[in-house]
Amino acid sequence: MAQRLYLAGPDVFLADARDIGRRKQEICREFGFEGLFPLDNDDTVGRDAASIFRANCALMQRADIGLFNLTPFRGPSADAGTVFELGYMFASGKAVHGYSSVSTAYRARVGPGLESLAAPRDGNGYAIENFGLTDNLMIVRAILEAGGELTSIEENAGAADSASLAAFRAFRACLEAVSARTDIARAEKRRPSRR
Amino acid sequence: MAQRLYLAGPDVFLADARDIGRRKQEICREFGFEGLFPLDNDDTVGRDAASIFRANCALMQRADIGLFNLTPFRGPSADAGTVFELGYMFASGKAVHGYSSVSTAYRARVGPGLESLAAPRDGNGYAIENFGLTDNLMIVRAILEAGGELTSIEENAGAADSASLAAFRAFRACLEAVSARTDIARAEKRRPSRR
Repeated sequence: MAQRLYLAGPDVFLADARDIGRRKQEICREFGFEGLFPLDNDDTVGRDAASIFRANCALMQRADIGLFNLTPFRGPSADAGTVFELGYMFASGKAVHGYSSVSTAYRARVGPGLESLAAPRDGNGYAIENFGLTDNLMIVRAILEAGGELTSIEENAGAADSASLAAFRAFRACLEAVSARTDIARAEKRRPSRR
Repeated sequence: MAQRLYLAGPDVFLADARDIGRRKQEICREFGFEGLFPLDNDDTVGRDAASIFRANCALMQRADIGLFNLTPFRGPSADAGTVFELGYMFASGKAVHGYSSVSTAYRARVGPGLESLAAPRDGNGYAIENFGLTDNLMIVRAILEAGGELTSIEENAGAADSASLAAFRAFRACLEAVSARTDIARAEKRRPSRR
């Protein structure tokens, strides 16, 4: 049976969210996965926040793997809902992987020009994480600790448009890497054990 | 034994993070709780991202309750690390509560003046969640679904300073509410069962 992938990300807020979800699900099928796309703002007519929350949690529970679009959204970090879901799936012991159309370090986005300082601070005096990671360490380290893939491919750098937020190139590359290791795992399972 | 509270929030990025952590731990003691304050940027000298991540996860596992400072940080939503931890503790079945020094609705912060629209969009055409909640629905609904307290008290509105980000007034009010229900739970436990 095809492994189920939960497709988390700010994609749900795009004008063409449904279309983007369908395209990502098609790419999932190419690689032999079933993509689960969260229902969200695209069809909130008649749906309240509680039912969307529960539906998303149920989808995450059904999924074997979480694939997180970590492209920064309305700030220097990934979309808040996506980050919540990463914490949720990580704690649930699911496999988690991330992708983004932005490959700069978090510290470079928050404090451009301050990278050489040992303890950089932003204009408000708030410390800027200085580990060279692409986002807050809890996000990046969760994926790495879980042995996940983290794929960044710059796409229309700086443009706040639908294509760059959907991060299709990084999505495909990440899926390819996840698929390769799934294939390896399957091949290893099939390999007769030595006696 | 005192219940252990994990004190999540962007407090760790403040210039006086250690002092703020200590003050919050003192307030916890006032209410009979033990406050666990995450080690983070304040003492990154000699510590790498991986060890900080693991230490924070270990603290969350030790905690009985998560208390989340959801005051917006570097954008319209709560700090990304804090949101990850909310997802983590929610999925781990821990009690979770939130507080903030900002009480406006998320949609008002992202799209001021657009509140009357049924499906508001920001300047990039991205949909703005329109449920009247103070942040992304995954954040707010997680706390409400878990039966948690959610306390917002405006403090130095709009000022990006240490005091307003620490949200001491909302912190104390939230802790008071959590403490009251813990007392009720204890009283109920002590009450002899009818025969």
